[in-house]
Amino acid sequence: MDTLTRIEQALDAAISAHEVAGGPPRLTAAIRHAVFPGGARIRPQLTLAVAMACGDDDPALADAAAVALELLHCASLVHDDLPCFDDAATRRGRPSIQAAFGQPLAVLAGDALIVLAFQALAAGAGRRPERLASLVGIVAAGTGMPFGIVAGQAWECEPRVVLSDYQRAKTGALFAAATEAGAQAAGGDGKRWRALGDRLGEAYQVADDIRDVLSDPAMLGKPVGQDASLGRPSAANQLGLDGAIRHFESLVAGAIEAIPECAGASRLRALVRMESERLVPKAWCDDVARRVVA
Amino acid sequence: MDTLTRIEQALDAAISAHEVAGGPPRLTAAIRHAVFPGGARIRPQLTLAVAMACGDDDPALADAAAVALELLHCASLVHDDLPCFDDAATRRGRPSIQAAFGQPLAVLAGDALIVLAFQALAAGAGRRPERLASLVGIVAAGTGMPFGIVAGQAWECEPRVVLSDYQRAKTGALFAAATEAGAQAAGGDGKRWRALGDRLGEAYQVADDIRDVLSDPAMLGKPVGQDASLGRPSAANQLGLDGAIRHFESLVAGAIEAIPECAGASRLRALVRMESERLVPKAWCDDVARRVVA
Repeated sequence: MDTLTRIEQALDAAISAHEVAGGPPRLTAAIRHAVFPGGARIRPQLTLAVAMACGDDDPALADAAAVALELLHCASLVHDDLPCFDDAATRRGRPSIQAAFGQPLAVLAGDALIVLAFQALAAGAGRRPERLASLVGIVAAGTGMPFGIVAGQAWECEPRVVLSDYQRAKTGALFAAATEAGAQAAGGDGKRWRALGDRLGEAYQVADDIRDVLSDPAMLGKPVGQDASLGRPSAANQLGLDGAIRHFESLVAGAIEAIPECAGASRLRALVRMESERLVPKAWCDDVARRVVA
Repeated sequence: MDTLTRIEQALDAAISAHEVAGGPPRLTAAIRHAVFPGGARIRPQLTLAVAMACGDDDPALADAAAVALELLHCASLVHDDLPCFDDAATRRGRPSIQAAFGQPLAVLAGDALIVLAFQALAAGAGRRPERLASLVGIVAAGTGMPFGIVAGQAWECEPRVVLSDYQRAKTGALFAAATEAGAQAAGGDGKRWRALGDRLGEAYQVADDIRDVLSDPAMLGKPVGQDASLGRPSAANQLGLDGAIRHFESLVAGAIEAIPECAGASRLRALVRMESERLVPKAWCDDVARRVVA
């Protein structure tokens, strides 16, 4: 089974387990809408790639970690789209949860997804209960206070913010949790794998800033120019477009360097290169470089 | 140490653990504001009362379960007060989080509190890692889909709702989780303790409906008459005030009957009676009965 199929099946199983008769139907529908169809599933892919690099001795637990991270990512998107943040009507080319189901169900779907993430982790720890506490800790640290994605989003409510702190928390934290949890779920040493996730996460956020300036709405599936119009900290605003692109390239190089030596290292390096090309195509960078020279 | 002191200290320790330098200060402040000073702390009191009735062989884990349930309760209050639900300006006699910190931080504080609840559970399971998965499962079931408090709140977004299903999920679920988790944290059989929490939770919700009609704003610390003005399902609306009071009394009697025989049973019965008097004072019931007869 390829990794993406494995992820989709694990997500479906985790959600189906709680879709029993007697629950509120619209919340159930909102949760499915928030998770399927997904985006690139980059966080769970990272989790499984690292778990496989570490031997993947308990695939059910690696799946649970991957599912937890993706559900938390989906939860953050649902809440980010609320009127008090991005007020986004679309997400992944479809109506956002708040547009399709209304604000109350968007708040509740996000809440339910956070809960479901921890539920999935606990359900996956049947064979290795001794690994559960550290996994909950890793996943929670990537999400909550003081350095997780929720804290990252909260920096937008502060009068002063350091761009790198903001980006590290807002995006990097869940990537770092993805790599650390992947290793830990497979009995590896999670700490050794944090730097990879950390750098990839920052690269991803910078790529998002770049795409926010460059792309067209059809490619991103959400309105462009949001960062500037919302006055949000952005690498493209602070460094200029070509500065942001050079920053992105150095973060990707750093991520590749941070991959610990192991059997799966070359496969992981290829995955990072492929993902970086997907996020910020070389053709864009060349085009921007030409314009800067001219 | 009395139970309330034990709860306050455990809550403070769980929150302090994540209040390190470098986190977003306003979110940190909002989280504290949401948890301190608290209300009656009835859920964690129930958890500890049941844990003690079951021998309390791992007080750190019982504390963690109590903390998790109270943090989830606080999270639900923070989100319930949002403009898209109750739009409450006050809570516990002080500004609500959304009034004091704004909507974005109210959404994020609620999210962070949910995460913190599971983090606290994991941190408390150091001596008994084999109990963690079932505790996460119990606490998550009380909170998420399909029958937890988030699902209960979501019934307000459905065109049709059965009052008892709604109340069981909206309030009962976390009470049932409180008693079940208290037993499980102490190595007891959680299932035997669910009925107590279930009935108490329903009683608590009915009491809230009664108080919504009867009390003055100063006593409740939030605006009265909300259920009727928001068109929310309410026992007082459906059964009439004296019907709701009789329903409350039968639920309290059922809760007392549901307490399993054990060393701490009489202490628990007294706690339930005391709490029921605090929620719906006998003087009110007599007053309503007099008016019905007249």
